Amino acid sequence: MTEIPVISGDAVFRAIDARTAIECTREAFERHARGEWRMPAKVYLDSSPYGDFRAMPALGEGLALLKWVTSFPGNTAKGLPVVRGEVLLSDADTGEELAVIECSSVTSLRTGAAAAVSAEALAPEGAKSVGIIGCGVNGAWSGRCLASAGYGPGVCADVRDERAHALAGELGWRVGERPEAAAQEVVVTVTPGNQPVILASDLRPGQHIAVLGADAHGKQEVELEAIERCRLFCDEWEQASAGGELANAVEARAVGREDVTQLGDVLNGDRGRTSDDEITLFDSTGLAIQDLAICRALYERWRAGEVEAPVVTL
Amino acid sequence: MTEIPVISGDAVFRAIDARTAIECTREAFERHARGEWRMPAKVYLDSSPYGDFRAMPALGEGLALLKWVTSFPGNTAKGLPVVRGEVLLSDADTGEELAVIECSSVTSLRTGAAAAVSAEALAPEGAKSVGIIGCGVNGAWSGRCLASAGYGPGVCADVRDERAHALAGELGWRVGERPEAAAQEVVVTVTPGNQPVILASDLRPGQHIAVLGADAHGKQEVELEAIERCRLFCDEWEQASAGGELANAVEARAVGREDVTQLGDVLNGDRGRTSDDEITLFDSTGLAIQDLAICRALYERWRAGEVEAPVVTL
Repeated sequence: MTEIPVISGDAVFRAIDARTAIECTREAFERHARGEWRMPAKVYLDSSPYGDFRAMPALGEGLALLKWVTSFPGNTAKGLPVVRGEVLLSDADTGEELAVIECSSVTSLRTGAAAAVSAEALAPEGAKSVGIIGCGVNGAWSGRCLASAGYGPGVCADVRDERAHALAGELGWRVGERPEAAAQEVVVTVTPGNQPVILASDLRPGQHIAVLGADAHGKQEVELEAIERCRLFCDEWEQASAGGELANAVEARAVGREDVTQLGDVLNGDRGRTSDDEITLFDSTGLAIQDLAICRALYERWRAGEVEAPVVTL
Repeated sequence: MTEIPVISGDAVFRAIDARTAIECTREAFERHARGEWRMPAKVYLDSSPYGDFRAMPALGEGLALLKWVTSFPGNTAKGLPVVRGEVLLSDADTGEELAVIECSSVTSLRTGAAAAVSAEALAPEGAKSVGIIGCGVNGAWSGRCLASAGYGPGVCADVRDERAHALAGELGWRVGERPEAAAQEVVVTVTPGNQPVILASDLRPGQHIAVLGADAHGKQEVELEAIERCRLFCDEWEQASAGGELANAVEARAVGREDVTQLGDVLNGDRGRTSDDEITLFDSTGLAIQDLAICRALYERWRAGEVEAPVVTL
């Protein structure tokens, strides 16, 4: 009989702040790029017409993780979360079950943190101003993580006015229209990807753009013509070229493997930005190794008695 | 905030008996064969040298399931379970998390039940005597399910004497050597698959053999020469031909797709056994849709207030 904690989303947010999420996410990219942490491809379980479930495994640092997470775009209209599910953490050496963790909290933290890690690695020295296009849960966490990393002030844009106001109010930033947000030095997009929110005409020299919304085939937040003008980066080529922002450009043969550098390789010393005027674009599809890094920190804090969670018997 | 039950292995065994497991498992095979329940291929997460984790999704009847389960063969020597992990159950229409369920209990029930379902579908009329080769957790549940379905008495064989005695004592059967178990009318093998436990010389006309141990590439419980003398069935061709008992025979080109019938198709009316003398062999690799059927019944019983389980907030 094994006893394990079940850690709620509230407990996750109390235990892991933006700064910790950024450190964990950076470590995840570095370790993965060095081959120390591993991650088979995620599996999609189609649940049409509602969306799909994804099973995302990862292994590293003596831990094995499985994230079971939905992407149900229609849920928003029903007042339900688009992203929900659980993370299971196990001991990689014995298989022992270690924890059940609420999953949307972990997802938000590592998604927002990826935007900040990409800005720290790729934005030019001195770039500070931020544009957030799409101020939902993950857009808000991108803003929080960028603010925590010293970026800002920023412009918050969302077709849902109240979302933009809430985030701007929280961070002491301001609300603006999409083109104004798209003109900032560091721009983050987290929209459903039904239509481009970064046009070629929006681009300014030296910008860094983190594209977080596209996580399945057919979604696209950036005009192809804009993509062609950027120096390209991604979290993982396989995911990004198959179902991320870059997928359409790859399909159109405008972009190939040799045109795109993985962020982990940049963190480990590969060439990132090559000039102050260049525009860098980071395609974030979301990796299970990022979840692993967050959950590892969380579990260590729980073991240290710093996280409140009910313990159940399996 | 979602509140979900965490259902322990003890609670699973209290709620689901062998008869229920058999009914659930039969329904799972039927529904899957009719295309009503779906199941993408399982993903393996290698955790060498200890074993691997498997993420197994399934969808049906308004439910989505993910089983996260180990196969750590070396754990036995450490006094740890080989099979452990959790099942996550979600609402397929909303993505809502419904339950966390201990996984080895579910696995044992559906694995043992598959042996009984295969015997009911494929053993000749009047076949009663049982041989169990390998009396570990899943061998024991095969015995229990067969007994519950009216089979027996049986012969229990295991290189670990105490395991054979425990099962024989529980069911009122007797202990015997491997060849004696292999000579019964219904034979179940649940061994690690390091060496054949069914030889061509063991075969008797009219036998039904359920082969449950081989669940990964390289494992084999039945001599190739013996396989060639049987009429072949499996739970699912993709899994069985890639990592099940049939994999070696397929690799040796002794067996092809046209030689093997899926059990669900037999249950739905396809040809099973064609004569009383024929020897039938069922290769069970274990399907996530079987887990789904068990967990669906369990969850319904929990909703009806019949299963005790702590409720936690995600």
